[in-house]
Amino acid sequence: MSIQEERKSRASAWFEDLRDRICAAFETIEDELTPDVAAKLPIAAELGDLAPGRFERKAWSREDGDPAAGGGGVMSIMRGRVFEKVGVNVSAVWGKFSPDFAQQIPGATDDPRFWASGVSLVAHMRSPLVPAVHMNTRHIVTTKSWFGGGADLTPMVPDEADTRAFHAALKAACDKHDPDYHARFKQWCDTYFHLKHRDEPRGVGGIFYDNLESDWEADFAFTRDVGLAFLDVYPKIVRRHMAEAWTPAQREHQLVRRGRYVEFNLLYDRGTLFGLKTGGNVEAILMSLPPAVAWP
Amino acid sequence: MSIQEERKSRASAWFEDLRDRICAAFETIEDELTPDVAAKLPIAAELGDLAPGRFERKAWSREDGDPAAGGGGVMSIMRGRVFEKVGVNVSAVWGKFSPDFAQQIPGATDDPRFWASGVSLVAHMRSPLVPAVHMNTRHIVTTKSWFGGGADLTPMVPDEADTRAFHAALKAACDKHDPDYHARFKQWCDTYFHLKHRDEPRGVGGIFYDNLESDWEADFAFTRDVGLAFLDVYPKIVRRHMAEAWTPAQREHQLVRRGRYVEFNLLYDRGTLFGLKTGGNVEAILMSLPPAVAWP
Repeated sequence: MSIQEERKSRASAWFEDLRDRICAAFETIEDELTPDVAAKLPIAAELGDLAPGRFERKAWSREDGDPAAGGGGVMSIMRGRVFEKVGVNVSAVWGKFSPDFAQQIPGATDDPRFWASGVSLVAHMRSPLVPAVHMNTRHIVTTKSWFGGGADLTPMVPDEADTRAFHAALKAACDKHDPDYHARFKQWCDTYFHLKHRDEPRGVGGIFYDNLESDWEADFAFTRDVGLAFLDVYPKIVRRHMAEAWTPAQREHQLVRRGRYVEFNLLYDRGTLFGLKTGGNVEAILMSLPPAVAWP
Repeated sequence: MSIQEERKSRASAWFEDLRDRICAAFETIEDELTPDVAAKLPIAAELGDLAPGRFERKAWSREDGDPAAGGGGVMSIMRGRVFEKVGVNVSAVWGKFSPDFAQQIPGATDDPRFWASGVSLVAHMRSPLVPAVHMNTRHIVTTKSWFGGGADLTPMVPDEADTRAFHAALKAACDKHDPDYHARFKQWCDTYFHLKHRDEPRGVGGIFYDNLESDWEADFAFTRDVGLAFLDVYPKIVRRHMAEAWTPAQREHQLVRRGRYVEFNLLYDRGTLFGLKTGGNVEAILMSLPPAVAWP
């Protein structure tokens, strides 16, 4: 196996491994919402009949008629007691960018072939006191090869301790690798997850990075650490709030804030728009949309 | 007053007049959902405390720092017993198109000044048995001058009689003016209101026309007739179903279908995208989004 093939294979294997660990961590949280805790929540009646959530997996293949294109992915989705809807997608796909698109991609101008693999996750929570979250890391190979990704938190009811913990976890992951990373990638996240038409941030941010091509082993290690930081900190934030009762007004506010999430993903998110407009897997791409939303 | 100023003024006055007639017709429907009818609906408990809906109006002004730009509009919104959320916007605005945008607009290539006025309406209904509906007519003046608009129906639970009645009303309005209009504008509607990423129509269609510049008086008369056809047929469709009970599964289906409405408006609708990306009135533009939506 060439070094490049070995790298692709290691990156894909990591994305799947991270997916497995995240799914296991989230299922454990589902088990922790015991009947006596659930009884204190405003949705006790709804939860009464609901077993702890478990992820369901569904594989899909990429087919675009080109024999040199292929790959596919696996969607994992859980509709649970704590996690109202959480989707985790892994994929590894290859083929040729369209001529227009190739011009915008590093290393694809003269040779439009690409290979891309990643893991991406969005969680929408039943409790408006538990923040929604997004995490994605990916590895792209054209004539160049780079990593990208990040994680960002969307609290519906702001909580300073959550925000601090989330940023601190990502900062620690960044600082292990480069003292400049956190400031740069935090700013990039704030700029990216901004609803221009409302001049509003989508949430409290986190980090966002792309086209990271310093040293392959170092970039891969950083990308793994971003995933591990997320895996460590988000469950803590969930546990901090999952047993707290909320008000109907907080739930209504959550549904309205989720509308902003939809607006961002359908109006601005590059991955969503690119995927939808180029025949990507609609079900996997739109798994990020919230289960219930309001524009009152 | 020049003939052109007089025409602008007549067009704007008509859009406001149509708005007033539509609001009055919809408020009458609200009054017709009497307590004994409401008691038979699955949301009787919710409706119990709710008075018949009335439109609330809110004026807004266009300000973009250019003394040669101006105008504004009035949003009318009703959250009622039959109409879960219905917005009717009228506006008359003028200014200069941005250089990029001017290249795409008839008659604006060399002179970017424009004047635009219109009425636009989206209704989302409590009952999944009553179709959602969209209607819009507008008059645009650059160095050219034209009318555009249309109406389209989005049933959640298909009903052949409704679809036939809706198309027949618009066909009659078209046929009064040109025997070719209906076939052309119906096809245009089907092409326009298509969710490419899902290869699905948004609803059962209606008519859509743009850049209509034959004879000003004839085009204005046609545009009025489109509005009047809508005003006649849609209340009939509402009345046909508003007293029918529905099932929880039908309501859930309605919330999912509304997601398609959101996807269309944020991914494809030219007016929405143009408005949001060029500093239009966000509240007026997004009034079209449904009050409650699900991506389960």
